[in-house]
Amino acid sequence: LQPLDSTATHIRVNTLRLREDFEYLARIGAKITYNGTPPAINRLALSPEDLQARAWFAERVEEAGLLLRDDDAGNLSGFLPAENKGAQTLLVGSHLDSVPDGGRYIGTIGVLAALECARTIHESGLKLPFNLEVMDFTDGEGCWQSLFGALGVAGLLQPIHINDIHNDNAPFRAALVRAGINPNDVFNSKRSPSTLLGYLELHIEQSYRLDQAGVSIGVVEAIVGRSTYHVNFFGQAAHAGTTNMSLGTRKDALQGAAAFITRAHDFVRANYDEGTLNFGDISVQPGKFNMIPSRCRLTMECRHTSEDILAEMEAAILALGQECAETYDLTMQPTRLIHMPAAVMAEPFVEAAEHACETLGVSHMRLSSFAGHEAQIMSTITPCGMIFIPSVGGVSHNPNEFSRWEDVVNGANTLLHTILALAE
Amino acid sequence: LQPLDSTATHIRVNTLRLREDFEYLARIGAKITYNGTPPAINRLALSPEDLQARAWFAERVEEAGLLLRDDDAGNLSGFLPAENKGAQTLLVGSHLDSVPDGGRYIGTIGVLAALECARTIHESGLKLPFNLEVMDFTDGEGCWQSLFGALGVAGLLQPIHINDIHNDNAPFRAALVRAGINPNDVFNSKRSPSTLLGYLELHIEQSYRLDQAGVSIGVVEAIVGRSTYHVNFFGQAAHAGTTNMSLGTRKDALQGAAAFITRAHDFVRANYDEGTLNFGDISVQPGKFNMIPSRCRLTMECRHTSEDILAEMEAAILALGQECAETYDLTMQPTRLIHMPAAVMAEPFVEAAEHACETLGVSHMRLSSFAGHEAQIMSTITPCGMIFIPSVGGVSHNPNEFSRWEDVVNGANTLLHTILALAE
Repeated sequence: LQPLDSTATHIRVNTLRLREDFEYLARIGAKITYNGTPPAINRLALSPEDLQARAWFAERVEEAGLLLRDDDAGNLSGFLPAENKGAQTLLVGSHLDSVPDGGRYIGTIGVLAALECARTIHESGLKLPFNLEVMDFTDGEGCWQSLFGALGVAGLLQPIHINDIHNDNAPFRAALVRAGINPNDVFNSKRSPSTLLGYLELHIEQSYRLDQAGVSIGVVEAIVGRSTYHVNFFGQAAHAGTTNMSLGTRKDALQGAAAFITRAHDFVRANYDEGTLNFGDISVQPGKFNMIPSRCRLTMECRHTSEDILAEMEAAILALGQECAETYDLTMQPTRLIHMPAAVMAEPFVEAAEHACETLGVSHMRLSSFAGHEAQIMSTITPCGMIFIPSVGGVSHNPNEFSRWEDVVNGANTLLHTILALAE
Repeated sequence: LQPLDSTATHIRVNTLRLREDFEYLARIGAKITYNGTPPAINRLALSPEDLQARAWFAERVEEAGLLLRDDDAGNLSGFLPAENKGAQTLLVGSHLDSVPDGGRYIGTIGVLAALECARTIHESGLKLPFNLEVMDFTDGEGCWQSLFGALGVAGLLQPIHINDIHNDNAPFRAALVRAGINPNDVFNSKRSPSTLLGYLELHIEQSYRLDQAGVSIGVVEAIVGRSTYHVNFFGQAAHAGTTNMSLGTRKDALQGAAAFITRAHDFVRANYDEGTLNFGDISVQPGKFNMIPSRCRLTMECRHTSEDILAEMEAAILALGQECAETYDLTMQPTRLIHMPAAVMAEPFVEAAEHACETLGVSHMRLSSFAGHEAQIMSTITPCGMIFIPSVGGVSHNPNEFSRWEDVVNGANTLLHTILALAE
């Protein structure tokens, strides 16, 4: 190993180049607004806009003299090799895709800061004892399958992610094929853990703890666990006007689901300070104004930073659902779709990030992440670290998502010096 | 006027022919089942299946020696002229279209019994002092626009029913054009009230009052008024995991809508014995499992047999919605889409139907209809009457919708003798 020069403490990313990249990317998939509000970003994974962003990223990678790579799950990367051919690889990055009508920062600044770090290190002539690989993971936002690319790298992709088991995945397979990805080959994206040094990611906090505390950098200790469900209530279709309004007669799937939504939220608010619950989508059949809904399907998501408490919370919520079903003379059927276990960040990565903050003289605090991230998946095979910058007002997944530019720059430099600290 | 022969009291419909028609029609648009349960009927208005049923009906009309007619709203009819050229016309009928996955009786038996009455009268050589016109009204179930054909005949069609004002009506216009109906001409279907003697309809009760009371025929006195709304709740999209669960922070449109559904049902159950409420459809935006719903749209329907009480009930329900919106830091916006006023049946028609029951020796009772019907619209321009037969278990708008065949026959003969009673 070649020790780093002490002048390395003075190295910084090129903020003008980072800004230029940020501004360019913020126009890809942006809906034009005419009233001065920020544009909504629509770079849904594998959409033409996402593919445009990926092509742009590939050009930047080659322009920077990095090696352009991709894998069979569509993950795209820029590779800066160490001198030692047998060196392990430190992955650094995030994702360029967005939620529908999302903001300009999520994922994007993680990829751009990682790219900028690799360019800065490459230009400086510093020799790292590991390969550095700048990652753009496929479908970080789960437009098709949540954290799809990271699941591929971690060897966790299952046939359920591609084939039609709980869902009709045909449109996803079509999108993969259009993007040049063979759905049968995605499992090949698995990497051997022995080749990896770890995974590091810069991200916006998506909450307001840093913003409210006036602290520049959050060093993530743990990432929330997350389970998603389809919860179906089954009743009986009947004419809305001629069927008696009494509970015993009307088997209205939507009434049961509505009571469940209210009671489950009240329950989590009252009992789980660290838990969150969301019903993000709902649909009923037959869906006519003069028909009592015979079926209601809810999309439910539960999160908690403790795996054990998450499991207990999920069970209690489903028991409430069962009670609501009985009250309205319905049956309930929950299907757990995805479980992303809560993850703990590696202490050496946490300390490296704190060391970087000290080197840079920026304020920092440890915190948990209430959103899922690639690091959650990657931590199942390799040590991980995450660095957060403040989100103003805690707004995210929204065009008004905003982080101050000085915080983005602080974040990029913290990422750079965390990489350098890991090299020492 | 030519008085009817006293032998007319002994005339009856041809039950075998009626049964044959019923069985044939029950196969048009029927989903095959493999387990012996009744097939779900799908003859959505203007669908290929509905057009097939209409073509079949047109053949029966011509075969029976009636004049086949249609109008610019797609209403199809068989006309049996009186000898007097200036005679008024008694309309008798219903609709052949169905709800999605509906049953075999609704609408269908009204049209088939009317056809059978016209055939029976025509064959018997009885001369009526009025023209008899067997109607198949367009879109009785409101797959596109509730009671569209009747609105046309009554001169109540408005541009809103065809053009894109509250809704995107382009698919409806396309369906009209495919069925050979010019959307710009539908207003021409208006009839002059002076040409009409009245409108008479046989229908299943869609409730269980007759079935529970063991009474064969219900003579309708009044039809429930009905209003439909879109109720929108507006909140703020945000990340489901990172946004605090407290009410002040999360502006979750679906939580507000869910509380409204529960509270509105409880309120109507507690305060309005004769009122019904239904939320038949619901949708949220953006509809992703990790996004707090920013908008929720509910489809709401209110019914009451009294116009005044209906108005009061609607206002109270919307006030509850406003309270729910405030509780969850949302805004609410209701849009009233359709109002079908409560209707009173003409006393001479009610008495004619009761007279028919007495002639036939079948039990009867007066009641209100909690479902909307063509008669509700037709009553704005001409006297109306309705005859109900028992629905077993009160089930309707469902493949299990069932009426005993003897009740169908009783209903058809009651319809026949009501026509004859009006002729006297």
